[in-house]
Amino acid sequence: MTSDFLKQLRDTLGTDIVETDADGIAPWLTDWRGVYKGNAQAVVRPRTTGQVAACLRLCNQYGVPVVPRGGNTGLCGGATPDASAANVILSLDRLNQVRSLDTVANTMVADAGCILGNLRRAASEADRLLPLSLAAEDSSQIGGNIATNAGGVNVLRYGMARELVLGIEAVLPSGEIYDGLQTLRKDNTGYDLKQLFIGSEGTLGIITGVALRLQAPTRVRAVVLAAVDSPDQALQLLRLVFGACGPRLQAFEFFTDQCLDLVLSQVDGLHAPFPTRHPAYVLVELADTAGEEALQAMLEEVIGQALEQELCMDAALSATLAQLHSLWRLREEISEAQKADGPHLKHDISLPIERIPEFMQSAEARLRTVAGDARLYIFGHFGDGNLHYNVSRPLGADRGWAHEWEERIADLVFEEVARYGGSISAEHGIGQLKRRAFHQHKDPMQIRLMRDIKRLFDPNGIMNPGKLL
Amino acid sequence: MTSDFLKQLRDTLGTDIVETDADGIAPWLTDWRGVYKGNAQAVVRPRTTGQVAACLRLCNQYGVPVVPRGGNTGLCGGATPDASAANVILSLDRLNQVRSLDTVANTMVADAGCILGNLRRAASEADRLLPLSLAAEDSSQIGGNIATNAGGVNVLRYGMARELVLGIEAVLPSGEIYDGLQTLRKDNTGYDLKQLFIGSEGTLGIITGVALRLQAPTRVRAVVLAAVDSPDQALQLLRLVFGACGPRLQAFEFFTDQCLDLVLSQVDGLHAPFPTRHPAYVLVELADTAGEEALQAMLEEVIGQALEQELCMDAALSATLAQLHSLWRLREEISEAQKADGPHLKHDISLPIERIPEFMQSAEARLRTVAGDARLYIFGHFGDGNLHYNVSRPLGADRGWAHEWEERIADLVFEEVARYGGSISAEHGIGQLKRRAFHQHKDPMQIRLMRDIKRLFDPNGIMNPGKLL
Repeated sequence: MTSDFLKQLRDTLGTDIVETDADGIAPWLTDWRGVYKGNAQAVVRPRTTGQVAACLRLCNQYGVPVVPRGGNTGLCGGATPDASAANVILSLDRLNQVRSLDTVANTMVADAGCILGNLRRAASEADRLLPLSLAAEDSSQIGGNIATNAGGVNVLRYGMARELVLGIEAVLPSGEIYDGLQTLRKDNTGYDLKQLFIGSEGTLGIITGVALRLQAPTRVRAVVLAAVDSPDQALQLLRLVFGACGPRLQAFEFFTDQCLDLVLSQVDGLHAPFPTRHPAYVLVELADTAGEEALQAMLEEVIGQALEQELCMDAALSATLAQLHSLWRLREEISEAQKADGPHLKHDISLPIERIPEFMQSAEARLRTVAGDARLYIFGHFGDGNLHYNVSRPLGADRGWAHEWEERIADLVFEEVARYGGSISAEHGIGQLKRRAFHQHKDPMQIRLMRDIKRLFDPNGIMNPGKLL
Repeated sequence: MTSDFLKQLRDTLGTDIVETDADGIAPWLTDWRGVYKGNAQAVVRPRTTGQVAACLRLCNQYGVPVVPRGGNTGLCGGATPDASAANVILSLDRLNQVRSLDTVANTMVADAGCILGNLRRAASEADRLLPLSLAAEDSSQIGGNIATNAGGVNVLRYGMARELVLGIEAVLPSGEIYDGLQTLRKDNTGYDLKQLFIGSEGTLGIITGVALRLQAPTRVRAVVLAAVDSPDQALQLLRLVFGACGPRLQAFEFFTDQCLDLVLSQVDGLHAPFPTRHPAYVLVELADTAGEEALQAMLEEVIGQALEQELCMDAALSATLAQLHSLWRLREEISEAQKADGPHLKHDISLPIERIPEFMQSAEARLRTVAGDARLYIFGHFGDGNLHYNVSRPLGADRGWAHEWEERIADLVFEEVARYGGSISAEHGIGQLKRRAFHQHKDPMQIRLMRDIKRLFDPNGIMNPGKLL
């Protein structure tokens, strides 16, 4: 038996757009990690913004909940439906055309369903850089990147996804189209409404198109791995490098010796970078439009100063591209090494950068009183104040430890984050995963304003229920 | 006779905070250019955020309109009260302390009433750069800069004021304090509410504190003035320079030969930069943290390529700081030269950068059919798509011409801007000046959403009535 709603949906959009078969729906009901699972009556895959609008208009009329779906690479369950059989999953994957790319204005306009990696390659072919870059870039879609204000590896230099957005086209739950797909660098005509869609996790409407800023290509890179005796020393090093290299500073990544240990023991083909071990390491990358030798010389000089001023203990400069990749692998393979080690409790947090050392000390001290011999793996985008603060079972404990301790340790970590003025979600968002922590730690007045705004855009509450708010 | 409201206001805040004497109020009733004049029953000059909150709470209770006042340097009448005798002007000038400055995190937290120039100097003394820079920086206040999303000369490289803001403290009309004064680079916990205050022109609440990002200092500069045969050639030059110099590109300013003519005839001590005259000129500035010779060499190389590829007609490189300043004066003195010439009709507009040549051709053609021999002075931040599109009386016409033609020419210019997808206000905002044009050209749906948001924050409509919406 087909409901009125489904009949109208099919009549309006066509059966090739509306999937209602249980087998066809099944693959859309879980997140990629298999952590979340939900339910839905249909998967809708529109080919045009107009079809997105028609779908939302009908859903709104019938009070049917809508779950927007990008590349399904999120880590917080934001694109997975809840348990309600009434859900409609709206996938943007067929809205996947680059609408324009201009190398004079340095702008790109694209459908929301474009794969981030494809957009990066399109920019690169035009001798420009789309700086948004993250591990899932060959699956994630630009609409989802913007709806979750994605971060990634280049935030230090180019900012979060938000800072790359010049314009947005979105469909409101009413089916009205918000036509803000402009490429202007300057436009002071009232409230900047597009900012509300960025990072709203599909709770206000559906982004169907985006206009992005492109940057000049970076053609040369120079990398050094510096050993530091403490997070505080890493901060002093950051101050020196930023002051000397300014806009060339592309990455300032941090990891503890525990992370290095894990990587060396779990991943093949990697070698210890220094003859002795040190408490922590910082990977510094400079990049520039041109001038490889000058860039290398600049990095050598600043690292020379750092050694002289005792802002690091030792330093390994990459002289070849192969060495550069080897140094980066020490940082990049940490996630793989964690996976091999077993379930880790992960916390994507940010802090006022200057308070990272205090936070680390305080959080570890508390952790030791609660879960004495848990293993701690701390690494991340130090230059942005973004730490991946990860906790694993004590040696010898079984793998069920993580599940058992998950909530207690998250509470502890987030309490310490709040104490030092940080954020419980640096770049991954709230989704389903962090709703409890969000409501515990966010200023109630701000939550109230968010709810009020949500009601303005989505009076019937159909957009992505159970996420964020 | 003193109203209940005024009595309570004085009792709550003290007489040194509340000025009600007509002579004391008079200087606060006009904008700095003397274009707008309004009325008020009191000027309130709080010393703390708490006093701002107490004032707004009372005003809200009594339905008294509030006009926030920063440095009064706006060009659109946004800080001048309307004709109502009920207005309260709330000046931020006594909230003027730097709260913190951190050179590890590269952040500065300051009261909203701090003078922008003072903050720039404080950053500079700490070997950091606060990139927001504009002509009025020694009078304008940072709160006003943020409330109007100020632009200025460094937008090409560092973005508008919005892009420098990490956090905001603001008082809502209810007297509640929005406590968002954080310095985090990454925080994905819900809608980014601070974005609503930025550029809202005091219509949602009053910004009392701001947290700003600082940049690495630029210690060396290199400048070239390039002659171009057309705006299109200027665009091709922009593409070349941006691709080669990337983040060093600090300014890409454009002016027509008519502007050069005006400057040379109205300002003493300036000389024609080239042996012959050309249709237009582009001033390119590169800046870097260090390496003067390398920077100069990079500029010479790229300009050499430009000449070879016929992307400019001639080029004058600055070899000394004195020459650099002379070249800049040709661009910077245009406003002074206009003032000397008499009233100009000014339009602060922006366009998709790649469409500037079409726009210029089309707008001038229309202008010629309407006001045949009006004189046209076009210059601006070409690299941002921001043009100052200025029209002056025909030679021999009297000075009343500007007033007589003001509305017709603005309508024409804004129509052409709309046709090419531009903005009627690039960086100056709407205020009182552009309300009519704003309502003519902004998407009605967006205006409706803005009104809805305004009602959420300010249900009694007390905040800066008659501005923007």
